[in-house]
Amino acid sequence: MNYRIRSYTFEDFGNQVRLFHGSIAPGIMIGGFMVDLAYQNLPADSIFDSISETAKCLPDAVQLLTPCTIGNRWLKIINVGRFALAFYDKYSGEGVRIQLDYSKLNQWPEINTWFFKLIPKKEQNLQGLLSEIKEAGTTILTITGIKVNLELLGKKATASVPVCPVCNKVYQSADGFICPDCCSKILPYA
Amino acid sequence: MNYRIRSYTFEDFGNQVRLFHGSIAPGIMIGGFMVDLAYQNLPADSIFDSISETAKCLPDAVQLLTPCTIGNRWLKIINVGRFALAFYDKYSGEGVRIQLDYSKLNQWPEINTWFFKLIPKKEQNLQGLLSEIKEAGTTILTITGIKVNLELLGKKATASVPVCPVCNKVYQSADGFICPDCCSKILPYA
Repeated sequence: MNYRIRSYTFEDFGNQVRLFHGSIAPGIMIGGFMVDLAYQNLPADSIFDSISETAKCLPDAVQLLTPCTIGNRWLKIINVGRFALAFYDKYSGEGVRIQLDYSKLNQWPEINTWFFKLIPKKEQNLQGLLSEIKEAGTTILTITGIKVNLELLGKKATASVPVCPVCNKVYQSADGFICPDCCSKILPYA
Repeated sequence: MNYRIRSYTFEDFGNQVRLFHGSIAPGIMIGGFMVDLAYQNLPADSIFDSISETAKCLPDAVQLLTPCTIGNRWLKIINVGRFALAFYDKYSGEGVRIQLDYSKLNQWPEINTWFFKLIPKKEQNLQGLLSEIKEAGTTILTITGIKVNLELLGKKATASVPVCPVCNKVYQSADGFICPDCCSKILPYA
């Protein structure tokens, strides 16, 4: 079994996760193996963008192990609540999607219990869970080829930086005459 | 002028930014001063969550300088296209909002040109811009007190981890019977 996650040992990656994320979250440790499996299957000389299909945990695995961050926009979150990551060539859209494969969890009771939230978090056996995650490595994952429709990602360049005539705040805009927050009040403060 | 950004010198923070983000993005350097100003005005003993009002650059300043990350959900992006950050007590909602104040940019021509995208990026004077950002520090920012309506943030606990009957994929759900991607096709790949 490959216990390494990119250039890290499992334990070293755990330390990186604790420093960045605040705790050694099981989801990020599995996410590390997901990134590792993706890189084993991607051409070494291409530039990849990524999508996380959940906002929880997985984005931090991507940010720690790849050049993709939320702020540089090479990582996007499209939150459909799935524990899956996609990596794709930013020009061709060709790439891979990795997901935790629940049909492979039979022999990993702690991972199964954690993933399906069968018991409250405080009753979980974290050390047992992390041991199973390390031992299982990439074997609980499924990888499939994908082709991302780049047009659907809808990358609009910022056309202008106007002052909103309603709130008088400056905002970046690809289109539109008043700012998104005035269009439909979405910020939870004034 | 305070050239420090939290515990870093301007140059040390720049190195951190380059390693994480891929380049010393001007927006993140200003973001560093925004985080610094926020922390000067927040009680030292509270636990703060954060909101970035843009998906570009600023989230990475928060992730590098605070315990808040996208993956641990202490940082949320509510993209209204504004160059602003909010930090608030996760229990009371009390906090501060920091924005780049365009009315204070008169004496900083490089920052003004960059912020309002007055010339193409490749014609920008990056060194001159970074020098102005360092010199300006927190003086180009405005801080206001806010009270976040925590109910509007709508944190729903994951109630279950069902298998979607349409696509047969597992997803996390607070409600709903089929997964978000099948409800309204939002992922740009099958």
